[in-house]
Amino acid sequence: MNRAILLISCPDSKGITAAVTGFIADNSGNIIHADQHIDEQSNTFFMRIEWSLEVFDIKREKITEAFIPIAIRFRMTWQLHFSDQKIRVAVFVSKHLHCLYDLLYRYRSGQLACEIPVIISNHSDAARLAKDFGIKFSEFAILHENKLVQEKKQIDILEQEKIDLVVLARYHQILTAGFVDAYQNRIINIHHSFLPAFAGKSPYLQAYQKGVKLIGATSHYVTENLDEGPIIEQDTVRISHRDSLEDLVCKGEDLEKVVLSRAVRWHLDKKILCYGNKTVVFD
Amino acid sequence: MNRAILLISCPDSKGITAAVTGFIADNSGNIIHADQHIDEQSNTFFMRIEWSLEVFDIKREKITEAFIPIAIRFRMTWQLHFSDQKIRVAVFVSKHLHCLYDLLYRYRSGQLACEIPVIISNHSDAARLAKDFGIKFSEFAILHENKLVQEKKQIDILEQEKIDLVVLARYHQILTAGFVDAYQNRIINIHHSFLPAFAGKSPYLQAYQKGVKLIGATSHYVTENLDEGPIIEQDTVRISHRDSLEDLVCKGEDLEKVVLSRAVRWHLDKKILCYGNKTVVFD
Amino acid sequence: MNRAILLISCPDSKGITAAVTGFIADNSGNIIHADQHIDEQSNTFFMRIEWSLEVFDIKREKITEAFIPIAIRFRMTWQLHFSDQKIRVAVFVSKHLHCLYDLLYRYRSGQLACEIPVIISNHSDAARLAKDFGIKFSEFAILHENKLVQEKKQIDILEQEKIDLVVLARYHQILTAGFVDAYQNRIINIHHSFLPAFAGKSPYLQAYQKGVKLIGATSHYVTENLDEGPIIEQDTVRISHRDSLEDLVCKGEDLEKVVLSRAVRWHLDKKILCYGNKTVVFD
Amino acid sequence: MNRAILLISCPDSKGITAAVTGFIADNSGNIIHADQHIDEQSNTFFMRIEWSLEVFDIKREKITEAFIPIAIRFRMTWQLHFSDQKIRVAVFVSKHLHCLYDLLYRYRSGQLACEIPVIISNHSDAARLAKDFGIKFSEFAILHENKLVQEKKQIDILEQEKIDLVVLARYHQILTAGFVDAYQNRIINIHHSFLPAFAGKSPYLQAYQKGVKLIGATSHYVTENLDEGPIIEQDTVRISHRDSLEDLVCKGEDLEKVVLSRAVRWHLDKKILCYGNKTVVFD
Repeated sequence: MNRAILLISCPDSKGITAAVTGFIADNSGNIIHADQHIDEQSNTFFMRIEWSLEVFDIKREKITEAFIPIAIRFRMTWQLHFSDQKIRVAVFVSKHLHCLYDLLYRYRSGQLACEIPVIISNHSDAARLAKDFGIKFSEFAILHENKLVQEKKQIDILEQEKIDLVVLARYHQILTAGFVDAYQNRIINIHHSFLPAFAGKSPYLQAYQKGVKLIGATSHYVTENLDEGPIIEQDTVRISHRDSLEDLVCKGEDLEKVVLSRAVRWHLDKKILCYGNKTVVFD
Repeated sequence: MNRAILLISCPDSKGITAAVTGFIADNSGNIIHADQHIDEQSNTFFMRIEWSLEVFDIKREKITEAFIPIAIRFRMTWQLHFSDQKIRVAVFVSKHLHCLYDLLYRYRSGQLACEIPVIISNHSDAARLAKDFGIKFSEFAILHENKLVQEKKQIDILEQEKIDLVVLARYHQILTAGFVDAYQNRIINIHHSFLPAFAGKSPYLQAYQKGVKLIGATSHYVTENLDEGPIIEQDTVRISHRDSLEDLVCKGEDLEKVVLSRAVRWHLDKKILCYGNKTVVFD
Repeated sequence: MNRAILLISCPDSKGITAAVTGFIADNSGNIIHADQHIDEQSNTFFMRIEWSLEVFDIKREKITEAFIPIAIRFRMTWQLHFSDQKIRVAVFVSKHLHCLYDLLYRYRSGQLACEIPVIISNHSDAARLAKDFGIKFSEFAILHENKLVQEKKQIDILEQEKIDLVVLARYHQILTAGFVDAYQNRIINIHHSFLPAFAGKSPYLQAYQKGVKLIGATSHYVTENLDEGPIIEQDTVRISHRDSLEDLVCKGEDLEKVVLSRAVRWHLDKKILCYGNKTVVFD
Repeated sequence: MNRAILLISCPDSKGITAAVTGFIADNSGNIIHADQHIDEQSNTFFMRIEWSLEVFDIKREKITEAFIPIAIRFRMTWQLHFSDQKIRVAVFVSKHLHCLYDLLYRYRSGQLACEIPVIISNHSDAARLAKDFGIKFSEFAILHENKLVQEKKQIDILEQEKIDLVVLARYHQILTAGFVDAYQNRIINIHHSFLPAFAGKSPYLQAYQKGVKLIGATSHYVTENLDEGPIIEQDTVRISHRDSLEDLVCKGEDLEKVVLSRAVRWHLDKKILCYGNKTVVFD
């Protein structure tokens, strides 16, 4: 049951929805999901539409060509995806393995529609887990003086493996601007706080010292500005004075896993559109 | 800025979205919101679409006529609303006034797009509050032997006041089947538990005795079966062994207010579609 | 059923709990609640203990004298309260009345064990509400040039009315250091964000522009540093791209009411201990 | 840093806290945590107290003897634990492995202070996972006609392995009364609904058909009455009409893992007291 998915953003105007849905209907397509949103501040129109290709009149490889006139007419930024194209994911991790472990279990049990050919780390801790799951493991110790060289090698692997999405599952290294640029809106990070609170280092310690009554986790696309990229998902959990710093870490890790895995799943299902520094998530 | 709103449900088939959005676009309408849903189990299509009437080619009183052919073609159940038609609401209440109080504050501060011409009760407790807000108050003491007679008088008032929606804001009387039938999907109740748990009497006491770790509240449309109508909204809050029965009531009342007011607002904004015993809420 | 409440903090050492509970037991007191906490970082001991005075051997006015030796022995900072002493509260408000309205309803329905003799504002909007509830209303227009003079008059009223607790229920003026010092740990503010995120002006607009997926509210004691005092309570609610700025305000106001009222109730029930810039809440 | 932990319940009366804390203080013990609770309906006193044995005057093996007079005086039901005694856990599972997987990761990473010598199942699915973690795996296919025989063998293993706690991590067999009696308050189950709603089979399907707006999970001690034992922990997550039955399962599994692991951790840390059909959790 292969499906096509269109993700569209453009200046709002009359007739966009009718043109897009008409395009599908006129070619015998059956719409499975359609969702749209208008950002009133910027007057921008967003749409995600998914239809069955079982009896669509236009061949898969001709859809782009057929859609171009509509895209031009409404000045659209758009992407066309097919549900049978599996996204290829590389997971980066350091020493905290809970998010990696969680992703791998979801991957194995079929919750994540992707391929994970490689795990990359600046430490060796994840090697055994990678082996258990039959995934290639590449270790690149990062020092101040070799960072660019090591990153270059990491990117080589990403290219060899045809990686579409990089997931930073508690990878405690800041990527260089060159890396980030090469994978714009294709690097998802988990930060262990409710951003914009407690950006940067040791967010649990910051939260503990501040005396907040809830802690949070945030998944976001990575941009050049640390912990400032478009937020995909957040959640919080209640804490109290009874919780030690270790309790915060323990409660927080449960949040991190859920918040990161939702973001990854939505990305794999082509449900996220970025605009400015924000996201539309058609969940 | 008047707007038209179509609420549609019908058997799913090809071309529904295209036909509806085409109808609006071909008549120069500008879609403000559009949301749709397909229930895969029953193969039913649901849609809510809202468009501006500022420059729409079809006069307001002719839209129904113009839309009928599409409705027939797809065997639609449908409603057409206009955003400038204010729904008229009657609030029923007994002795617990927190939900009434909350609704009246939201009403006064402009959060609820409705008129509330009358408050009806089987007790006198709400009389002062009604007076403070300049709303007519009608008291009908209900006994086993006069229930039908009193209900008849209540319905007379609803008809006189042209009431579209009845809100049971902790009204501790069970309406008769005749009343419920006359206002199908137009009576919203708040029940102070997470239904289907703790239906019926004294849900906080039931929850306390059961030793649950969360309590809840549920807003739903009223049907002939007590506490079993289509659920509109629910929420829960954490409790512990430290909470007495009084604490449960206190925490629960805060839930009730929010859960009831969300349901009322969604109803007023024509965002709810019922099917079978469930709801689609286009929030 | 009058009760005594001791709030204690001191350096941790052996025998504190035994000494305090022994003091009560040796004088025939019946402990109703006892809770303690040790902050392991600062090695500080905290305790809240509440006992019935029905058959206590020491007369109420002699308890302080009798307890002093224990307090000295363990170098305690301590407060003795009696449950029949009603705290006197002044509510400050500007133009957003939802929190005031909510507090007054809780006050009238008996949820808040206090007296509210006066409402103070820099605008006239709350005058009618104060009148409805039979509470004195004092308006002090605040300009840059008269701020100190007006504050002086406000403090005169607080002193006349023997106010123990000031609640800033969306009062949009920054109190001067002199005011804050005079009511240390006795001024509770509601800030409409999840602090430390979005401190200062227009937190909902900041949240909207940042694209967060949850919004929050924070109640805290006021210190000289704006929005940085000890946090008493926080909560969050989920939002999405579908929520406009107005929706954020609407959802956030529901949070503010609950988060502020919890803090006020805990303060009235003597359940909060401050230390450093944090709170222990014995809920 | 070994610690002793007393869990106490008894009829409430004067002087209990003073007697217990005095016992510790008089023997030079340093209290690390103390928490108490009085159930006002049944007039029952509950206490959990934890103290360091580093410099305690009474030898570990003599504490019971020394405490007996106090226990008798107040008619206590009580347990004495030591923090260095590792509880031995057997995990039972069927075909859904997410909870098992989650527990094993927490076990390996040090979050659960226990030993897990054996995993028992009525299917073979978990065999590989057990092997990855180096834990013995025992499979017992259960048919109607061999249930008692197989259970007998399971209990033999529990006895051989000196198991203190049985965790049913989605084990889809109902234990017989004999099994349950032998491990009273020592069998923890996870049920995938917000009990008492949707007890019994297929709770996600029941929830889907009912159209609830939140789903839940419940961890509880197992009694002879299915899904009716004392509740330890519960949580809920929001769903909408957009969620298919598969989405409910996916969201629900994340709840189950957290709700089960909290219950197991609290049990291991001796933080749970049962009374009647409820629990006190000193978290």
